[in-house]
Amino acid sequence: MKKSFPNVTLADIQQARQALAQHVAPSPLLLNTWLSEALGCQLYLKLENMHPIGSFKIRGATYRISRLSAAERRKGVITSSAGNHAQGVAWASRKLGVSALIVMPKGAPLMKIQNTRALGAEVILEGETFDEAFQAAQKIARKTGRIFVHAFEDHDVIAGQGTTGLELLEQLPDVDAIIGPIGGGGLMGGISIVMRELRPQTRLIGCQASGAPAMMRSIRGGKLAVVDRVETFADGIAVKKASPRLFGILKSRLHECHEADDEAIAAAVLTLLEKAKVVAEGAGALPLAVAERLKTRLKGKKVVLLISGGNIDVNVLSRIIDRGLIRAGRRVRANVLISDRPGSLARLTDLIARQGASILQAIHDRGEPSTTIDQTDVALTLETRGPEHSKALIQALRKHVLRLDILS
Amino acid sequence: MKKSFPNVTLADIQQARQALAQHVAPSPLLLNTWLSEALGCQLYLKLENMHPIGSFKIRGATYRISRLSAAERRKGVITSSAGNHAQGVAWASRKLGVSALIVMPKGAPLMKIQNTRALGAEVILEGETFDEAFQAAQKIARKTGRIFVHAFEDHDVIAGQGTTGLELLEQLPDVDAIIGPIGGGGLMGGISIVMRELRPQTRLIGCQASGAPAMMRSIRGGKLAVVDRVETFADGIAVKKASPRLFGILKSRLHECHEADDEAIAAAVLTLLEKAKVVAEGAGALPLAVAERLKTRLKGKKVVLLISGGNIDVNVLSRIIDRGLIRAGRRVRANVLISDRPGSLARLTDLIARQGASILQAIHDRGEPSTTIDQTDVALTLETRGPEHSKALIQALRKHVLRLDILS
Repeated sequence: MKKSFPNVTLADIQQARQALAQHVAPSPLLLNTWLSEALGCQLYLKLENMHPIGSFKIRGATYRISRLSAAERRKGVITSSAGNHAQGVAWASRKLGVSALIVMPKGAPLMKIQNTRALGAEVILEGETFDEAFQAAQKIARKTGRIFVHAFEDHDVIAGQGTTGLELLEQLPDVDAIIGPIGGGGLMGGISIVMRELRPQTRLIGCQASGAPAMMRSIRGGKLAVVDRVETFADGIAVKKASPRLFGILKSRLHECHEADDEAIAAAVLTLLEKAKVVAEGAGALPLAVAERLKTRLKGKKVVLLISGGNIDVNVLSRIIDRGLIRAGRRVRANVLISDRPGSLARLTDLIARQGASILQAIHDRGEPSTTIDQTDVALTLETRGPEHSKALIQALRKHVLRLDILS
Repeated sequence: MKKSFPNVTLADIQQARQALAQHVAPSPLLLNTWLSEALGCQLYLKLENMHPIGSFKIRGATYRISRLSAAERRKGVITSSAGNHAQGVAWASRKLGVSALIVMPKGAPLMKIQNTRALGAEVILEGETFDEAFQAAQKIARKTGRIFVHAFEDHDVIAGQGTTGLELLEQLPDVDAIIGPIGGGGLMGGISIVMRELRPQTRLIGCQASGAPAMMRSIRGGKLAVVDRVETFADGIAVKKASPRLFGILKSRLHECHEADDEAIAAAVLTLLEKAKVVAEGAGALPLAVAERLKTRLKGKKVVLLISGGNIDVNVLSRIIDRGLIRAGRRVRANVLISDRPGSLARLTDLIARQGASILQAIHDRGEPSTTIDQTDVALTLETRGPEHSKALIQALRKHVLRLDILS
């Protein structure tokens, strides 16, 4: 049986824009010259990560909650989410004086629970998985009369996210292409409604993580797809099942949809950190990873990347930097075998110093059983100035030590 | 003997603004709600790190070079800098079709040499210290006729940096306080000229790194000060000698000047990363460190922090994150002593898993000579959800192991 939904129209999104004006400031759109040169186009970043809660979810949640009737407000709202939508609902509820209850699965990261509670929402932990938390929230909604605010399968939420498109058109009226992440699809769905009406020649390019490609498969296959298991560090878009409502909007409005794997997404996070000075979470960096793949086709165009959010755990960020530095040839990890005679380690570290590299870690293990009695293993992590420097350093080390294995 | 300088006036800065309009886009000014709540004021970030070269230095360098006569343009420009000013001069020179030569000391980080060369400037390495590179550049300027572009001791450069103040006043006409970093002092100098004329009631608060306090000492002592040795990771403001010209401007216009140490600056870098989603270098994060100290006095005010730049090496950023996590109780480093019987390590790692912590690193060293023959040392780095979780984890570990030493 097919469900049908009242269409979200341009007029709905314009109305949302008016309602949001007093609550949510427009996000900046900045031309990035470094990325423009690297990609051979005029590359703009729509910085949705600069919103109070660090993501575009503030738009939809705030508009949805601002539309509640007086009676509904008194009952309060409820949702299930461990991510940006939870913070959006919490933020908007506090702003609009509505009680908010957020249901998260039991394993939810403490950090996310804390952030949501800090915004004034009540958080309860129910169920082992996201699906179970979702069911629990629905049940509580039925019992208590709280209004359930869905993260994307909702008319007003989609209208709210769509305001990004109106804003963007004012900031860059002749935009040629918009590249944005798709999890549920609310952001690209709302924007696509705006663009179809006001600037149909703008190319709309959706992106998904390779480990969570439900909507991409739906669009390519022409019917709703579900993936058994989502596997990506871009938790903002780790959605298993394509939304029927958003599929209906996107299938006729999106021009294309692409994927990028976690490796490419992590590299994009690092590039944005270094070259744009902004913190993007996986979903927010994904459009850059896709833009790099489409480089030839984007040449000379005005391209907007939707940096949808910046809520990435700094532990993860630290790991991305570390791995990115190794990949970029700016960090070398190696196991070397040296003689066990006195002074060997001193000579090794002296050589490294003379090569101009810094030792981040050196583990000198005389007990390692795989070496002979007069040899010893040293595990090194070295900081270099770049690939050339790393190459020269490795060459010098090779001449000096008994054996050298590069780890990566 | 006292040198005298033609005063930089508001009219000069207004003229600079007009000249820069076609080259340098205004930087965003964003209200940050998280920091506003934390500090009890309305806290705005002036994101000078979002400029093409990642710092405000683009303003002064571009204006200075745009003012060259046709004959001067043909001769080209020269400067000595290993930092943001070098990139500003390189960027502006390429933009305006002028040849640029940058002199850096021999030990300059390859990354900075590469970044400057990537902007089209010629880079040569002369001298062992910054002072020697500076002398060499002056000498080359005299020999070749290239125009020397000083990083701050220059009329047009100061006028260019002052445009930040005009921009800011348009973005937030009723600003109560501006907190900005002082290295040479060009940025706060230029802004202070604007504010004295257009909004004298705005409180101007300069900041320096504790390890490089020359201008602060000059202003507090009423005469030019020099520090023997600068020691801070905030390389953008590591200036040994207060500039006479800027001292002249600042001493009568700055309302106060404060310092923060590297520990506090590093914590501010991490806060901006997590809560504002922006990458700030040490100098750019310093105003937040100072604002935290002045919290009570800033209560209820409209406060602007000048995030002067975002050019921080990601290696440094990664270390700041790592240390910040330890300080924030979100990472635990400990040495534990366990029995050497079979299964001991398995039981230890099992305990850690049951406590919900992740093992980032575990070095199990049976060869450690300080332990007895039936005991073994394990060096652990563990990721936790926060201080409470760390405390509970440490308690559980203490009960389980023979000895536990927390490293920090």
